[in-house]
Amino acid sequence: MATQDRQNGPTTTPQPPIQERFVLAAAWVIPMDPPGTVLTDHAVVVAEGRIATLLPITEAQTRYPQSEWPWIVRPNHVALPGFVNAHTHAAMTLLRGIADDLPLERWLNEAIWPREQALVSPEFVYEGSWIAAAEMIAGGITTALDMYFFPDAAAQAFHEAGLRAMLGLVTLEFPTPYANDADAYLEKGLAAWEKWRDTPLLSFALAPHAPYTVSDATFARIAALANELELPVHLHLNETANETPQSLAQFGVSPLERLARTGILETPQVIAAHGVHLDRDELVTLGKYGAALVHCPTSNMKLASGAADVTAWHAHGVIAALGSDGAASNNRLDLFWEMRHAALLAKLTQKNAAALPAATLLEMATLGGAKALGLGDEIGSLTPGKSADLITVSFESFLTRPLFDPISHLVWVADREQVCDVWIAGVAKKRDHALLLQKSNTQLAVFAEKWRKYRKQSGPCLS
Amino acid sequence: MATQDRQNGPTTTPQPPIQERFVLAAAWVIPMDPPGTVLTDHAVVVAEGRIATLLPITEAQTRYPQSEWPWIVRPNHVALPGFVNAHTHAAMTLLRGIADDLPLERWLNEAIWPREQALVSPEFVYEGSWIAAAEMIAGGITTALDMYFFPDAAAQAFHEAGLRAMLGLVTLEFPTPYANDADAYLEKGLAAWEKWRDTPLLSFALAPHAPYTVSDATFARIAALANELELPVHLHLNETANETPQSLAQFGVSPLERLARTGILETPQVIAAHGVHLDRDELVTLGKYGAALVHCPTSNMKLASGAADVTAWHAHGVIAALGSDGAASNNRLDLFWEMRHAALLAKLTQKNAAALPAATLLEMATLGGAKALGLGDEIGSLTPGKSADLITVSFESFLTRPLFDPISHLVWVADREQVCDVWIAGVAKKRDHALLLQKSNTQLAVFAEKWRKYRKQSGPCLS
Repeated sequence: MATQDRQNGPTTTPQPPIQERFVLAAAWVIPMDPPGTVLTDHAVVVAEGRIATLLPITEAQTRYPQSEWPWIVRPNHVALPGFVNAHTHAAMTLLRGIADDLPLERWLNEAIWPREQALVSPEFVYEGSWIAAAEMIAGGITTALDMYFFPDAAAQAFHEAGLRAMLGLVTLEFPTPYANDADAYLEKGLAAWEKWRDTPLLSFALAPHAPYTVSDATFARIAALANELELPVHLHLNETANETPQSLAQFGVSPLERLARTGILETPQVIAAHGVHLDRDELVTLGKYGAALVHCPTSNMKLASGAADVTAWHAHGVIAALGSDGAASNNRLDLFWEMRHAALLAKLTQKNAAALPAATLLEMATLGGAKALGLGDEIGSLTPGKSADLITVSFESFLTRPLFDPISHLVWVADREQVCDVWIAGVAKKRDHALLLQKSNTQLAVFAEKWRKYRKQSGPCLS
Repeated sequence: MATQDRQNGPTTTPQPPIQERFVLAAAWVIPMDPPGTVLTDHAVVVAEGRIATLLPITEAQTRYPQSEWPWIVRPNHVALPGFVNAHTHAAMTLLRGIADDLPLERWLNEAIWPREQALVSPEFVYEGSWIAAAEMIAGGITTALDMYFFPDAAAQAFHEAGLRAMLGLVTLEFPTPYANDADAYLEKGLAAWEKWRDTPLLSFALAPHAPYTVSDATFARIAALANELELPVHLHLNETANETPQSLAQFGVSPLERLARTGILETPQVIAAHGVHLDRDELVTLGKYGAALVHCPTSNMKLASGAADVTAWHAHGVIAALGSDGAASNNRLDLFWEMRHAALLAKLTQKNAAALPAATLLEMATLGGAKALGLGDEIGSLTPGKSADLITVSFESFLTRPLFDPISHLVWVADREQVCDVWIAGVAKKRDHALLLQKSNTQLAVFAEKWRKYRKQSGPCLS
């Protein structure tokens, strides 16, 4: 497995993670706040797992001398906050590439749902979430908002991996291997919340799957719970063009009006994935309530769902974040892809090469995602006092040169392979291109391949 | 420079390139002909720089024993023909990221053209083309069709790098640092052709820049030359929506009609880049003449040029290839990106998740590109007798698992960092993730950065 390991760095025994107190010196530091700032030759000082200060390297050498502080020197790298993946279904990584290039209905009905029905179990979710967590950390994602079955198993995986995660406690009306009805979903979700709620790095959201799969009564119950427990609400909203006409036909009102009348919009924080098909008035409403929309451009294009108008989101005060969606419709959990695909999509559909510039996309991938999750005071920028969720990206290779603007390069040149270091709450999870996780790359590959045998057992289509 | 080098493999002394005679054993072999074929546990036998045969590994062990043949074993890899980048401006790699997120007119008039006017020289083209060649080889591109100034300098770089290249001998009517008028462009281009025409791996095309920059008289002269010298013609065609109305206003006919009436369509092989805005009749005409169109989806989206209807290209018998365009509008020379971006673009604009499936994109990136360049008998598939232009892509990492379909994974999961080996005409140019080139990664990075000082001298915009 030499090659595999090399892709994430040397195969030598991992160095002990440097924890919680260090000086990171980088060629460029992008704190994200104030917006658009690029500091050259700066140091990020981390103490007790939090950002202590940012200052020029020359000053840092005096105030935080190498004789007293561990220094990490990255002379051709940019340091920035870790990415926030604001919408994913982590365990679906085990279905990566199982059904591509299919129309949405066949993809769901013939490929994905039957397989989930056959496969989903705590073991599936634990192992799939572990691979997803490792993939995200390898690519500089330090926080993820997940929505899937068996959140207890996902929490176990994220906790072991050391990923900051918000677990969406999924609720549906119909039975799956996880639960039989909305009551059972909520009961199991809240049990997971009770078990893990005080665990560092983990947080929770109530996750009614979507207006077309959840009843008004359940929405109302979730709204009450969200207010009582002070939990965010995460759901899918207007991903495809037919959701509004179907809702009008079935309920007499739009999906967003159902969220309003059941009280969902009044809950502490609404985080709606996709939002591809929303009109101006709907964006005004979402902006008024401080809601967040999560743009998933790869998934939206791949499944031919359409193009969200993110520029309009910003214009109407909606918090805008980026998400990978699940690996069955993407097929990577990679915020570099999402930034770039969002840029290409916006320029194409707006017929304006200046639409969604790189700096805006970097904001969506970091501070925008943090605000979307209601974690804007804790993560998303390199602001003193915030958690040290921090990455470096290498621009050392000739493949990333010349270099005129590191923000442009992050969106238009870099791929996740350039992620050199990752810290979450000051704990090193990747160092000099090598992952520092409880599970080895080889163990993770074995996890992934283990489920492959089910391919032909559980779906009628595909070779 | 440890990190930089690691990105392309170990920093140990490169192994001597294995030349011209070896057995490559891979988990999957995709010969591209017949279409859609995936051979499992097969060996590709290379002799005298050409594909000798494909056969099961077990048979190869008997017929080509390791005692007599060098064997390269890649147990978690796919082997396939190298990619053909059918439209690029290699030397513009030195302008990578110099001006992003600008409207097309400002991008050209304020950022690119003034800088080219100030910078372009044989040295600029040699060094920029060397970086581009190395970048392309690193990413599995074994053939490129280049169009830029000073083709003599580009030929020198491609020859040294060992990249198979077709040099487009660019012709314009207006002066640049390279030449003053169409006569001078053609004279200099033909001098380069005379000098390099018998060099292995190099071939040539006449390259009238575009209908909007070249006169009828020059097109007619180029048509005559192309027929006389049996050279292909490479040009830009209908990249933006305003080209046809402008041509109608200025010339009374469309750009394609100008190509027809000046005899360009009757030349041996027409290779037109972009073709974003072409109607059905125009595609019928191009198909009738056996012309090729080169789809550059990243550049087309990034510059908001529009969406070429590649499905219609195929329907009308046009040869369809993929191109990266130059690194100033992309910003990578990466056919993995082009395959994926083409897929996303087609699905979005056709509102059909089944549009442009992975197998079609892989064909465009390999055999389609070979046919477009008139090299379909020499490269593009692992057909016995063809040149051994061959790559392997690693699916060993957990990041690329589970694996259900290697063709899907090439488009939807892989990035160029997974390219493990590259041979061009049987000569190893990358081996086990390490580039084997005359110039080191460090030298190439120095080349790239050397030109950065010109940024602020030669354009009014940008920070």
